[in-house]
Amino acid sequence: MEHIRTPKLENVRMFDKLTPRKSMVGTLYLSSTHTIFVENSEARKETWILHSLMSNVERLPTNPSGSPLIIRCKNFHVYRLLIPLEKDCVDVLASLARLSHPERYGELFCFSFNPNLDKELREKAWAFIDLKAEFIRMGIPRNLWHATAANHEHRLCDTYPSELYVPKSVSPAVIVGSAKFRSRGRLPVLSYYHRDSSASICRSSQPLSGFSARSSDDEQMLQAIMKSNPVSEFMYVVDTRPKLNAMANRAAGKGYENEDHYTHIKLQFIGIENIHVMRNSQQKLIDVGDLVAPTMSDFLWGLENSGWLKHIKAVLDAGVFIAKAVAEDGVSVLVHCSDGWDRTAQACSVASVLLDSYYRTIKGLMVLIEKDWVSFGHKFSHRYAHLDGDPKEVSPVMDQFLECVWQLMQQFPCAFEFNERFLIQLHTHIFSCQYGNFIGNCQKERRDLKLQERTHSLWPHLWENRAEYTNPLYRTDHSQTQGVLKPLTTAYCFKFWKGMYGCAEKSVTSQSPADCLNAVREESQQLEEELSTHQERIVELKEKTSGERKETKKLSERARRPIPNECELGSPLDYFTTPRSEKHTPPFTLPLELAAQPKSGDPDDLSTCSDFESGVADLSSHSSSAGDDAKDPD
Amino acid sequence: MEHIRTPKLENVRMFDKLTPRKSMVGTLYLSSTHTIFVENSEARKETWILHSLMSNVERLPTNPSGSPLIIRCKNFHVYRLLIPLEKDCVDVLASLARLSHPERYGELFCFSFNPNLDKELREKAWAFIDLKAEFIRMGIPRNLWHATAANHEHRLCDTYPSELYVPKSVSPAVIVGSAKFRSRGRLPVLSYYHRDSSASICRSSQPLSGFSARSSDDEQMLQAIMKSNPVSEFMYVVDTRPKLNAMANRAAGKGYENEDHYTHIKLQFIGIENIHVMRNSQQKLIDVGDLVAPTMSDFLWGLENSGWLKHIKAVLDAGVFIAKAVAEDGVSVLVHCSDGWDRTAQACSVASVLLDSYYRTIKGLMVLIEKDWVSFGHKFSHRYAHLDGDPKEVSPVMDQFLECVWQLMQQFPCAFEFNERFLIQLHTHIFSCQYGNFIGNCQKERRDLKLQERTHSLWPHLWENRAEYTNPLYRTDHSQTQGVLKPLTTAYCFKFWKGMYGCAEKSVTSQSPADCLNAVREESQQLEEELSTHQERIVELKEKTSGERKETKKLSERARRPIPNECELGSPLDYFTTPRSEKHTPPFTLPLELAAQPKSGDPDDLSTCSDFESGVADLSSHSSSAGDDAKDPD
Repeated sequence: MEHIRTPKLENVRMFDKLTPRKSMVGTLYLSSTHTIFVENSEARKETWILHSLMSNVERLPTNPSGSPLIIRCKNFHVYRLLIPLEKDCVDVLASLARLSHPERYGELFCFSFNPNLDKELREKAWAFIDLKAEFIRMGIPRNLWHATAANHEHRLCDTYPSELYVPKSVSPAVIVGSAKFRSRGRLPVLSYYHRDSSASICRSSQPLSGFSARSSDDEQMLQAIMKSNPVSEFMYVVDTRPKLNAMANRAAGKGYENEDHYTHIKLQFIGIENIHVMRNSQQKLIDVGDLVAPTMSDFLWGLENSGWLKHIKAVLDAGVFIAKAVAEDGVSVLVHCSDGWDRTAQACSVASVLLDSYYRTIKGLMVLIEKDWVSFGHKFSHRYAHLDGDPKEVSPVMDQFLECVWQLMQQFPCAFEFNERFLIQLHTHIFSCQYGNFIGNCQKERRDLKLQERTHSLWPHLWENRAEYTNPLYRTDHSQTQGVLKPLTTAYCFKFWKGMYGCAEKSVTSQSPADCLNAVREESQQLEEELSTHQERIVELKEKTSGERKETKKLSERARRPIPNECELGSPLDYFTTPRSEKHTPPFTLPLELAAQPKSGDPDDLSTCSDFESGVADLSSHSSSAGDDAKDPD
Repeated sequence: MEHIRTPKLENVRMFDKLTPRKSMVGTLYLSSTHTIFVENSEARKETWILHSLMSNVERLPTNPSGSPLIIRCKNFHVYRLLIPLEKDCVDVLASLARLSHPERYGELFCFSFNPNLDKELREKAWAFIDLKAEFIRMGIPRNLWHATAANHEHRLCDTYPSELYVPKSVSPAVIVGSAKFRSRGRLPVLSYYHRDSSASICRSSQPLSGFSARSSDDEQMLQAIMKSNPVSEFMYVVDTRPKLNAMANRAAGKGYENEDHYTHIKLQFIGIENIHVMRNSQQKLIDVGDLVAPTMSDFLWGLENSGWLKHIKAVLDAGVFIAKAVAEDGVSVLVHCSDGWDRTAQACSVASVLLDSYYRTIKGLMVLIEKDWVSFGHKFSHRYAHLDGDPKEVSPVMDQFLECVWQLMQQFPCAFEFNERFLIQLHTHIFSCQYGNFIGNCQKERRDLKLQERTHSLWPHLWENRAEYTNPLYRTDHSQTQGVLKPLTTAYCFKFWKGMYGCAEKSVTSQSPADCLNAVREESQQLEEELSTHQERIVELKEKTSGERKETKKLSERARRPIPNECELGSPLDYFTTPRSEKHTPPFTLPLELAAQPKSGDPDDLSTCSDFESGVADLSSHSSSAGDDAKDPD
């Protein structure tokens, strides 16, 4: 609490974005993790704002009615406050400026967040996603690929996971040699194996080729990867950068593969821009979403000028190129950019979503993020500014991946098990620092921080609430659900993601399609349940009919038996315990006990606020009462 | 057949828009009504193009492979052909140039289109929409409003219907006087009465006020309209034009109401641009949709530059203003523009869709179009270029209304009984001239043409196929379905209508949400059917059981009584015979017999092609076999 100068302020005004003349008076509380606004209304509606989600707090010049304060969040929510006294506003600003920019990992919310799980449950939760199992699921042929211990204790590459999958044919010397010839030791390793075509997606950083350097080990490594696909005579090397950027890197002794040295490769540049271009582009897009009453021209010109959708298209195009090579041409692909942790992660994971229906399920997307982002060393802490640091390291890399998935959902509404809400919730938690999953920049750093012992995992929490994140149109038995997705990427297939960037746009009267669909699905499910009950009833009645025929011969026996049978038959309980209905009921139960567990309901009692669940939940829903369960802004 | 120089051409090539290198060789046939392309493939796939739907046929310079011909249609479909010999291409061009630009009404397709209905059925079909019944449905209070015969034989206004609804309190002299003071005699008359608030929407043309003229009759007319709403002390006059345009009209002795002369009115300008601005804007939009592989910038810049969505927003804003005045403020509104047949029709009908859930049903939208467009004298033949005439009279007025409805469907996916396909089908038939409904510019003209005796009505045809046009998300019992719609009209709520303008964008793999939803609904319906079969089966089995029981009655009294009691108690039937399941059954059955009716299946036999249904159906689906039923491009 050392940074909090004024823990409580009365008569603060909070403004509505859409109707700036509308506002509510209430009390503002500052805790060590949240800023909470409690309306003076009878409902005492609460708005919780997590400090680690604040991206920027700004004080406007004091006017006769008070001192305005604007809080902008990393999930694009904006809160506008008016504090009666300038002095108080200065104090709040100073406190929030510090609280929203932690300087050490120890200050992050995840280290104080305590959802009251015992040690055993916490450990079990961390084991929820198992990447070893995932590589087995892919069906990697054991005679061609294996896990190498070469990076044990991260001695080869400190940003890679300790377990790496490489062609079985390469010697340890080749592995070490290849790592030495790659930027930051990030050698080519397996990311995804496509069982149907035997083609694979490997990933790495750029080679240290400069203008003429070469490495026979690295060349052997690529040769081995190519040969691990018995049916193909060449492989693609996809450099996701614009060719000019890749060429510029040669001056620094880096660059791209020389096709004269690497026989049997075809080099392909994709042209995804770098993190700085993306950061600037997203800022322009946020500005568009921030406009209060934009004209059509403001909006469309702003959207075009931001370049955002062009970049989303580039990332999706990269994924489409790779997926097509792997699935249609049966050709393996090595993907890299510069360091192999931003554009490479985007391209590999978009391609995987297109190729493998598993990654289009709730659990599968978690596995994919764990594999291609968390495990392979995407710099979460730097990109999403978890700690006060270099603003030039910040970039919406993961935002773009999630948006690519969302754009795909618009084209294939039945192919994804999850809904938009799931993506938005993931996005929020990448920034929230509430769970340990996205803290640090690589596996080694997370191990050094002992995150698994000191923090909780997000995945089981999302899994428990998956009913909220389920797309009612998803059908596992759809042929299109199962196959490889072949999206169109012409310009008019891309839309502004209103749910993400236009989050202030809400109307009580407009209907969410997802909610309507859920209603339809529930009705459908209910009908199926009713039907199965009827079928059972018929079977039983039939049995009885034939039974009765036999039994009419023996009067006394017949009179005794049927009555309890009828009782059992007709019990309304039967309507809920049929095996058929189990099949269609979501394969889990809502964690009602969890949702209803006692919360520290008194907003004044911040010192004992041990369960912050409610707070973060509210963040994503702009405002709601402290006892509510997690809800989506939609 | 007088205009057809070459009725059949072999070895013509038809190109695919998306993959210009892909093409099919086939035979081109010219009939008096259609151009038909029959592929040489085994499937002999046919593409039928209605001549009256062609907007432009263009011949490109001959190249070594042949003479290219581009056919652009009014529903934005584009066909690219390559004809081996230049001479033949010139002939086809000359024929199509003439066939696609009929000079007399008698040449229109509707006069030759013969769906084999007998006289009685044809007459019944024309009575399908009954506007008298519609005014009764609105619940007009008979003491305040009545139908006047003042326009009998169109003696007051030749572009208005003969039956007009006016306040009961106005004298015939006031009616005549008001008509004289309005452009083209289009006096203020009732368009919609809102029972819940007693407020009404009236429509007219601009007053002949110039700089100082006034008419006591017209002033009395407005006063009477205002007073027909007992609870309100003023009324709005909504001039849908930009104020500058309205002022410019004063120089020609026209203009707008002077608030000094008309007491108790509030004048409101909306700013919908004129038909020329709209025509140019749509052309730019079509050009955007026509781009083969636009960059994101091409697309967004083109969309912004076209101004199209800005105009759609203006029309929707007009509707929202009127609906709010009528429903929330309880204030009556008189709507006009210049002549009161373009912007006025748009504003009144959009407001009606927002206000009255009936107009959001399939039948209701037909009624609305019949009332506010057909009956009130929208110039269909001029606006949609049915005959070769002044290109400056052409404008996408109806296109904009249909798009406003589509944009509303995006915001309220459960509030409309119909789907996008219905709107696109309506759009096609406004241009197709296949049915008599949209021929001519007003009721008088249609009577003079004896359309009801000589052509067929579209409405029953659409109604019979309504299963295809049904939105599976529509729920009559939804509170939001019933209420007044309050859409957001901020810029990011508007989308490019891909289904209409990006119609070449098709992919076999991408899923249409509507189709997915239909699949869900069909399954639902199937389940309901299975359920009812089971219910019947149970009843039968029960009867049988109890029948058998009766036989055994004599054997034991004890055995008989408790069983039926238990059955009744626990009968699953109790769970289904509630009104609930009835409520959710769709209110109609699929017209399967109709859909399967025999068609003239031989494409070569054009002379006897009496059923052109299939041809036009194909038009809307780009290409399909002649025997197919009408299908949507999506």
